[in-house]
Amino acid sequence: MLNYASPLTYGPSVMDWQERINTERMRKERAQRLKEVMKNKGVAALLLEREDNIRYATGLPGDAFMPGLRYCLFFAEYDPIIWEHAGRYERRNEWPWMKEENWRIARCWLGGVCGHEATNETAKLFAKEIAEELNNKGLKGERLGVTALDGTSIKALGELGINTFDAQSLLFEARKVKTQDEINCLKMITAITDRAWYEIYKNIRPGLRDIDLTAIGYKAMIEAGAEIGGVVPFFSGPSTFERGLAMTDRIIEPGDIVYGDITNFGYMGYKVCLYRTFIVGRKPNQKERDLYKKLLDKQNAIIEAIKPGATTADAAKYFKPASTWGYEDEDRVFTIEIGHGIGLYLYEPPIINRLWSIKHPQIFEVGNVMAIESREGEPGLGVRLEDMIVVTEKGAELLSRFPRDEIIVAGEVGG
Amino acid sequence: MLNYASPLTYGPSVMDWQERINTERMRKERAQRLKEVMKNKGVAALLLEREDNIRYATGLPGDAFMPGLRYCLFFAEYDPIIWEHAGRYERRNEWPWMKEENWRIARCWLGGVCGHEATNETAKLFAKEIAEELNNKGLKGERLGVTALDGTSIKALGELGINTFDAQSLLFEARKVKTQDEINCLKMITAITDRAWYEIYKNIRPGLRDIDLTAIGYKAMIEAGAEIGGVVPFFSGPSTFERGLAMTDRIIEPGDIVYGDITNFGYMGYKVCLYRTFIVGRKPNQKERDLYKKLLDKQNAIIEAIKPGATTADAAKYFKPASTWGYEDEDRVFTIEIGHGIGLYLYEPPIINRLWSIKHPQIFEVGNVMAIESREGEPGLGVRLEDMIVVTEKGAELLSRFPRDEIIVAGEVGG
Repeated sequence: MLNYASPLTYGPSVMDWQERINTERMRKERAQRLKEVMKNKGVAALLLEREDNIRYATGLPGDAFMPGLRYCLFFAEYDPIIWEHAGRYERRNEWPWMKEENWRIARCWLGGVCGHEATNETAKLFAKEIAEELNNKGLKGERLGVTALDGTSIKALGELGINTFDAQSLLFEARKVKTQDEINCLKMITAITDRAWYEIYKNIRPGLRDIDLTAIGYKAMIEAGAEIGGVVPFFSGPSTFERGLAMTDRIIEPGDIVYGDITNFGYMGYKVCLYRTFIVGRKPNQKERDLYKKLLDKQNAIIEAIKPGATTADAAKYFKPASTWGYEDEDRVFTIEIGHGIGLYLYEPPIINRLWSIKHPQIFEVGNVMAIESREGEPGLGVRLEDMIVVTEKGAELLSRFPRDEIIVAGEVGG
Repeated sequence: MLNYASPLTYGPSVMDWQERINTERMRKERAQRLKEVMKNKGVAALLLEREDNIRYATGLPGDAFMPGLRYCLFFAEYDPIIWEHAGRYERRNEWPWMKEENWRIARCWLGGVCGHEATNETAKLFAKEIAEELNNKGLKGERLGVTALDGTSIKALGELGINTFDAQSLLFEARKVKTQDEINCLKMITAITDRAWYEIYKNIRPGLRDIDLTAIGYKAMIEAGAEIGGVVPFFSGPSTFERGLAMTDRIIEPGDIVYGDITNFGYMGYKVCLYRTFIVGRKPNQKERDLYKKLLDKQNAIIEAIKPGATTADAAKYFKPASTWGYEDEDRVFTIEIGHGIGLYLYEPPIINRLWSIKHPQIFEVGNVMAIESREGEPGLGVRLEDMIVVTEKGAELLSRFPRDEIIVAGEVGG
């Protein structure tokens, strides 16, 4: 018997008379967690790139649409320095929590599209400015943790004697346990998906294209308060067993199984990942019901195995071995039979799968938020379910209340 | 006086009685162009990552949703070998042009989320399999061109003695001149945006949120035949001058200027990037008309300067120096006043801006396709326009026929 997490008592807007998500507290607690990890690891400075990393550390949004348009020096002991993209840079008064003296204009080479010489020239300036800031803080010679930097950046820093190492694991370490406000953001984005699921449910019908459900779901997500960036892949009939995420214009036919994923939409950056399975114009037959029951039992067993102090190995054993499907290798079900931490990024620790968890278990902690997904079926006929859960003292609690116990019947013709 | 490119005589679907975009020819010609560049540069093998690179070289779609889920060894002299993501791997019969013996299952560590040990173990296997294929082809010891690989991949390859270099410039070299089918894909995605522009035009009205226009535009793009992956950022009133691409729920008020971008949606992967400017509920005043006229004159001057044999320096001089806006630095208008090649990726060569083009000019060639964008205005009041053009023997020709000569009046109240 699974438990549900307590629902929010408020919606996505701001309200003066009701304490909601406290964005200032969220920013402070996240930065504090990251600084603690840095101190524990003896790392004085991080050079951060990628939306999720920078948002976690500083509270800046995800609108750097190309690599290199925004980057940030984040210190264990000092205020961060931001190199900001044109336009955004002029709007820095929107972020009063960042000090005026800590803004810089970004240097970006758009992946080298400007040619070899211009790239080198720009990268040299990028590295020189980083080196100067490190020198100013007395950090010359300290190793610099970096995330999501390209090879050109790392090379340019190296030429100035800056020794870098991949620090994504430090970010993951800080982020794997969510603060109360982060958990509430994840509850909000889960509630927002209810609008999309219901719109899709109402609209599923013979003759629609798979990708039409994508469009309907996207619009509903935005209207209900999600940020852009997400996708709503849907697949029908013979495409329901083996997943390929390029959506098509396949026409939904009466009797089809249809499954879909609402994924990577954020609320204040916190992402959602949920699957549901529908059937078009008829009730599922016994075989389909049995498949879905196996799927549900598997999901429930995994979720019940998730509790503080238990490990990903305890949960992973409820995924079927890849050999069940005739596969020689766990990579053949990679990201298909998986539990993944979720937050500002779609894949955060912990990770549950047979590929890694048995040999390299990770320990569940209170405050982990995860998405658990799997499928059952046979070639030509598949059913899928993905749940999101938060780990509490009492174990894992489900976040989404959208029905999950049966294949959802939609688009019935006649009665 | 600008010329328009010839419109397509067909729509986005397939038709037996009419030659349309010839996908087989497109695949062959692209692979051929890339092989020629490799031979000219003396490069025997490329290890490709990123949707645009792999799609160009092999014709596989853009559904590897995380780095490392799909990668490809592309050879100057042999058929490519694909490491494919689970699910997709089982559906390889959808791509009969790839030989059965050249498929492998991908090894991916999801950016290290599985922890240090599991990451190393997986990366070792990844590198070992690449090394084996290179050995089988007699390419041991040859330098390997790579695109968009992460640091872990490059390190793991290095530990097996594989010497890598960044080969994105080779891909750009092949791609900067488009084949006839690529140009027709770009014409198609431009035509598809007409549906979104018109839906947005009809819907712009006081009281709507900026992000509602995003949702309306997205749905229209998908319905008209675009692939997912794009965004439709819209901004109104005081947010029209300095650009920040994080969309908000700002409420559109009567009299507001509203601008928007339809960007990064693909048709067969070929991307669009277009801006238009609207005004809500009234006609523009003289000041606004004058600003837009300056903008239009600038765009036209740049586009007229684009012709085969001319350089990006010839065109860049029509962008105003950043000092015009009181900025000390061209990076302060970076990607805001820019012309960029566009194809399977949003930024391909050539690039026109004052930051790079004067000192490092690139030469325009027949078959370049570009997006040219700029703005005029002052703090609190901005107008924007982005055009797409194809370079022909006769010069640059506009792709989109959606009106661009004036600020578009929408959402009038009363009459």
